Amino acid sequence: MAAGCVIGVDLGGTKLLAGVVDSGLNVRHRAYRHARESGSTEALIALLVEAVEQARDAAGEEIRAVGFGIPSLVDAATGVAGTTVHLPLQDVPFRDLMAERLGVPVAVDNDANAAMVAEHRHGAARGARTAALLTLGTGIGGALLVDGRLVHGASGAAGEWGHMVVDLDGAPCHGSCPNRGCLETVVSGTALGKAGRRAAEDRPESGLGRALASGREITGALVTELAHDGDEVARDVLAAMGRHLGVGLANVVNILNPEVVVVGGGVLAAGDLLLEPARRTVAERALAPSRDQVRIVPTRFGDASGMIGAALLAMDLADGVSERAA
Amino acid sequence: MAAGCVIGVDLGGTKLLAGVVDSGLNVRHRAYRHARESGSTEALIALLVEAVEQARDAAGEEIRAVGFGIPSLVDAATGVAGTTVHLPLQDVPFRDLMAERLGVPVAVDNDANAAMVAEHRHGAARGARTAALLTLGTGIGGALLVDGRLVHGASGAAGEWGHMVVDLDGAPCHGSCPNRGCLETVVSGTALGKAGRRAAEDRPESGLGRALASGREITGALVTELAHDGDEVARDVLAAMGRHLGVGLANVVNILNPEVVVVGGGVLAAGDLLLEPARRTVAERALAPSRDQVRIVPTRFGDASGMIGAALLAMDLADGVSERAA
Repeated sequence: MAAGCVIGVDLGGTKLLAGVVDSGLNVRHRAYRHARESGSTEALIALLVEAVEQARDAAGEEIRAVGFGIPSLVDAATGVAGTTVHLPLQDVPFRDLMAERLGVPVAVDNDANAAMVAEHRHGAARGARTAALLTLGTGIGGALLVDGRLVHGASGAAGEWGHMVVDLDGAPCHGSCPNRGCLETVVSGTALGKAGRRAAEDRPESGLGRALASGREITGALVTELAHDGDEVARDVLAAMGRHLGVGLANVVNILNPEVVVVGGGVLAAGDLLLEPARRTVAERALAPSRDQVRIVPTRFGDASGMIGAALLAMDLADGVSERAA
Repeated sequence: MAAGCVIGVDLGGTKLLAGVVDSGLNVRHRAYRHARESGSTEALIALLVEAVEQARDAAGEEIRAVGFGIPSLVDAATGVAGTTVHLPLQDVPFRDLMAERLGVPVAVDNDANAAMVAEHRHGAARGARTAALLTLGTGIGGALLVDGRLVHGASGAAGEWGHMVVDLDGAPCHGSCPNRGCLETVVSGTALGKAGRRAAEDRPESGLGRALASGREITGALVTELAHDGDEVARDVLAAMGRHLGVGLANVVNILNPEVVVVGGGVLAAGDLLLEPARRTVAERALAPSRDQVRIVPTRFGDASGMIGAALLAMDLADGVSERAA
């Protein structure tokens, strides 16, 4: 890999993280923004440009390329964003538009695919031939790897584990997903906040209940914080979501028979409070021998997986590599 | 491909089909057995040997190899049968045992993988890079194809679409599957018979109701027969199952973004009475653009897909090909 820095950008449903990454994978500078505040497509693009420029100014040297992980189905050939459940990016010619605005080569893929690239080449899925990744944030991002390569499907839309129905007649899904009972309706930061609010109302004596009474907004992050502080009701809420996650992961295990399933995203701040019940459910519900062979592990790079993966895609582009296996 | 015949054997949860297949894929002789009547592992092996010998005698020429598709998770390296939901094959060293009994080289894979080989090389999935296959019989067999190659997973257990939970707190699954609400609990020949019986009891004036009153056993095959004869209640039962199938296929489409999903197995005798409601549900519930790009089609080889695929695996073995893409 040639020397010189790239910028990786991870755009989630609510947050944006841009980082200057050198050839040794050291992250030198970071820039954060709130994506949700952008509103329109044009405002969102402007926000992305601003974050990249801030990171580029901080780098103080030439940037070889910029890579983006975006929460969209991405057409690999054209770099056009397709269905985007949580942000106004649908049908935006993202790669060409950003290359024009930034004046450098631009690589783009789905945010979960970018995270998988980072985790597979250098992280929790290193060495795996068959793997899946789920990022639990506003919604669920997903990716899958077969024979050591990302699976994009017929048009770059593969890997949507979050839009796998686990509850036939469940609640309507979000945004541009027309389905009901998708995994992300029961497992996500959004779902955790909702479940936390219900528990706070049912159990006013709990830490969650007292937080509600004091006027705090019950978010997924607050449920996690109170659970880490020892609130049993908050822990129960996380355990229930962990069991639902386990049903989804049992499906992943039965469908793909992966060596490893990597789970990341903001909701993983809950750590084993979420992952342990999920692992137990996989052990109880998935088929042998797949259930006994799979490792279910958190991302190595935490919140930075998508950004580092996007940086790796930018390095591939700058190096003239069209696709790289592990 | 060298000249000479092979024998392909498709072992399902209830039926066994052996066929002599020549290098032009012509099926020269067939032998059928009822697998369910076998009871023990040893009796089942004896039944398989007997069916192969009957086909071999009918062929009247040397058989180069025998291929088996079996309803088991199969370890590709060792040919040992793992989890087998509907038959007593678990932990049987299938490949070596059959090679010893038959005195010819033996290839073995999961029955749905064998069907995918036939449909991908010469049938409904020809030319596809990304595809899925579901065979609806006693249970559901499944396979997936990425970059034109079968996906086996870490230990040969990939592709179990039938053991994907679509109903979190649904009915217990069968045999050695410890799960609940798996797709095969709501979509299979078994599930069709059960739904048909319920409908017959609720609607005694229908064709199904009259069949029940006359003492006939309400099987999936009978529901399909009456539906083809025009019984509206039987058609409604198939349509309801088709919508459940559609939920499962929408999951397949969102997870894999395949060019084609091939649906086969005995239940496909219902044809479009089952597939049309499934296609409508995919159009309503899956994500764009995947839902608009996928073709959902029946197997080209019908009930013979698994047997012909097993024959192709035998030809590969006899030709010294370890794995062949399309």
